[in-house]
Amino acid sequence: MRSRQLFTPGPTEVPWRVREKMAGPMIHHRTEEFRAIQRETIDDLREVMRTRNPVMLLACSGTGAMEAALVNLTKPGEKVLVTVLGKFSHRWKEIAEAYGLDVATVDARWGDPVRPEDLERALGAHPGVGVVFTTHAETSTGVLQDVESMARIAHAKGALIVVDGITSVCAEKLETDAWGLDVVVGSSQKGVMTPPGLAFLSLSDAARARMEGAGQPAYYFDLKRALASHEKGDSPWTPPIGLVMGLHEALKMIKEEGLESVIERHARNARAVRAAVRALDLEVFPSVPANCTTAIVIPDGHAEQIRKHLYDVYGIRIAGGQERLKGKIVRIGHLGHYFESDIFTVVSSFESTLLDMGLVAAGGRGVEALFREFHEM
Amino acid sequence: MRSRQLFTPGPTEVPWRVREKMAGPMIHHRTEEFRAIQRETIDDLREVMRTRNPVMLLACSGTGAMEAALVNLTKPGEKVLVTVLGKFSHRWKEIAEAYGLDVATVDARWGDPVRPEDLERALGAHPGVGVVFTTHAETSTGVLQDVESMARIAHAKGALIVVDGITSVCAEKLETDAWGLDVVVGSSQKGVMTPPGLAFLSLSDAARARMEGAGQPAYYFDLKRALASHEKGDSPWTPPIGLVMGLHEALKMIKEEGLESVIERHARNARAVRAAVRALDLEVFPSVPANCTTAIVIPDGHAEQIRKHLYDVYGIRIAGGQERLKGKIVRIGHLGHYFESDIFTVVSSFESTLLDMGLVAAGGRGVEALFREFHEM
Repeated sequence: MRSRQLFTPGPTEVPWRVREKMAGPMIHHRTEEFRAIQRETIDDLREVMRTRNPVMLLACSGTGAMEAALVNLTKPGEKVLVTVLGKFSHRWKEIAEAYGLDVATVDARWGDPVRPEDLERALGAHPGVGVVFTTHAETSTGVLQDVESMARIAHAKGALIVVDGITSVCAEKLETDAWGLDVVVGSSQKGVMTPPGLAFLSLSDAARARMEGAGQPAYYFDLKRALASHEKGDSPWTPPIGLVMGLHEALKMIKEEGLESVIERHARNARAVRAAVRALDLEVFPSVPANCTTAIVIPDGHAEQIRKHLYDVYGIRIAGGQERLKGKIVRIGHLGHYFESDIFTVVSSFESTLLDMGLVAAGGRGVEALFREFHEM
Repeated sequence: MRSRQLFTPGPTEVPWRVREKMAGPMIHHRTEEFRAIQRETIDDLREVMRTRNPVMLLACSGTGAMEAALVNLTKPGEKVLVTVLGKFSHRWKEIAEAYGLDVATVDARWGDPVRPEDLERALGAHPGVGVVFTTHAETSTGVLQDVESMARIAHAKGALIVVDGITSVCAEKLETDAWGLDVVVGSSQKGVMTPPGLAFLSLSDAARARMEGAGQPAYYFDLKRALASHEKGDSPWTPPIGLVMGLHEALKMIKEEGLESVIERHARNARAVRAAVRALDLEVFPSVPANCTTAIVIPDGHAEQIRKHLYDVYGIRIAGGQERLKGKIVRIGHLGHYFESDIFTVVSSFESTLLDMGLVAAGGRGVEALFREFHEM
């Protein structure tokens, strides 16, 4: 019996230190003890998000926090622009439509980013857009977008920019304040190595000002209420106490390693996996790959069979393609608590699977490339 | 250094079996392994809620599930009726107003339930009410309401009834189907002994039919989407995987003990605490007490001092009064995983606190009454 390991871009493996913390006795949330934990967690989130803006914790998945951002910043009928380049960036469009917004999109082929110049053209073609909703790393395709340039363009046109940073926080260089990102949304089960169920977002002064005059009906996701409550160290509803305690510990681990080192580890792991993929004569799917996951083109409909073999024989869970990419790609997640040796685990098992299935002739080229990349040979 | 213990009506103590399960390795939610856990969890919830209706899991606090029920069953401007008898029943009114409903209320003094005849009169005075929003056990006052009779009255007037069962599921007799409750809302950190962050609700056929023609804008809380996804064993968004695994284990424990035994244990613990309170010459606050918590009137402004002493000296956390009851009552929670010996822990510490503070003359009457009540002497 092998022990099993997740290499999926969310949920990600949760380090034992985090799980141990969450396994402690329950504490009450209306206490100084919990308020201190919440305050420190928020301060540490602000550090890793590189912002002095207030950050709010929300008891929901990342999608709930996306919705919270949208309903608090917009009015029904208002014109907004969404960049669509995969399943999760498309979700912005779905939420906006559910709330009766007038949604324009700027689209890229799945596998490519929306280029800043495309955004600029779209904003020119759609005057009156108040908010741009975009995505830093599109998890379904493994694509990274240049949200720094996008923010500059959006602001030049008088629009705010709301960024889904769900799979980029702690995995990519993400400078909320220096880049002027008005809202950044994140969630627990990604780079911050905690189980799912807790999301967070930051709000710039401009976003807070916009909230005053905007807003759809909201109660649970009313960010004004959350903000006022957080300012007193409190939360409007019962928070997911265990998950907050877990995130608190995970952020301590990230601070101990150092944010820059954590991001550089993600970049190095991602580069190494791409080197191995190419050494195996396979194609990396995205044209501009993110650090969260490596999407790999799998020819001849073998993708799901590879995933099944990897799990059944080697105990390794990787992700498949979603929607139009189903059966066409696999995605190796390396977001969160993964080190060199973990990358050898997943790549060696992946290469063994290809060999078992007769999809490569000779073995060892993938792990060799991995080794050489890690040693910069 | 004493170990500390929670006697609050949510969050409640989480049994080690549940915490141990949540401390295991993370699993992925888009797998047969997780789908089986989710299916069993939902089936077990249906058993403890005594319903054949579909039950949905939502990644949010109980308030989020209340909002989900309301936004899916109503239209802006529609007339609804809310029973208001404390902080949490008042929340129905706040949510309804946030969504632009025309809200009528039927109020009771905090400490009393709304009587079924009051509801009947109110429905007579407000024709055209489509949905009644009510509360089984009002946690802020410790009051139990007769939702069985209320359901009969609401249905006779052609209205649906939506019940906040957050502190009553697994603690009170609650017959969703036999009483005809159209929606029952629950959450994890209460009688089902799991950390906060996971809520659930059941939907009757009539509620589902109403959803077809009603509904406010919703995405994260779109129950049609949740229902369709659950029917395939799936969930629309990333679920709080660890909490679902915890709830799965907690419900196994409840089934092992037997639902009736669990509810009878709650009733016995509540009776015993009330007997002790009266033996200490103190007044039980609610006129119709629920099993979740015992609210005790504390004269002369000593309530917060008692709570502080109990925690600082004896390591016991109990709840205080909220809003208009702040400083006037304390609430001993006995909801969830509490057995006779735990009740001795909290009552003996409470009685010691009163003695330490010079608020009772002779010691031992409370624990004696407790002992006699448990032994039916």
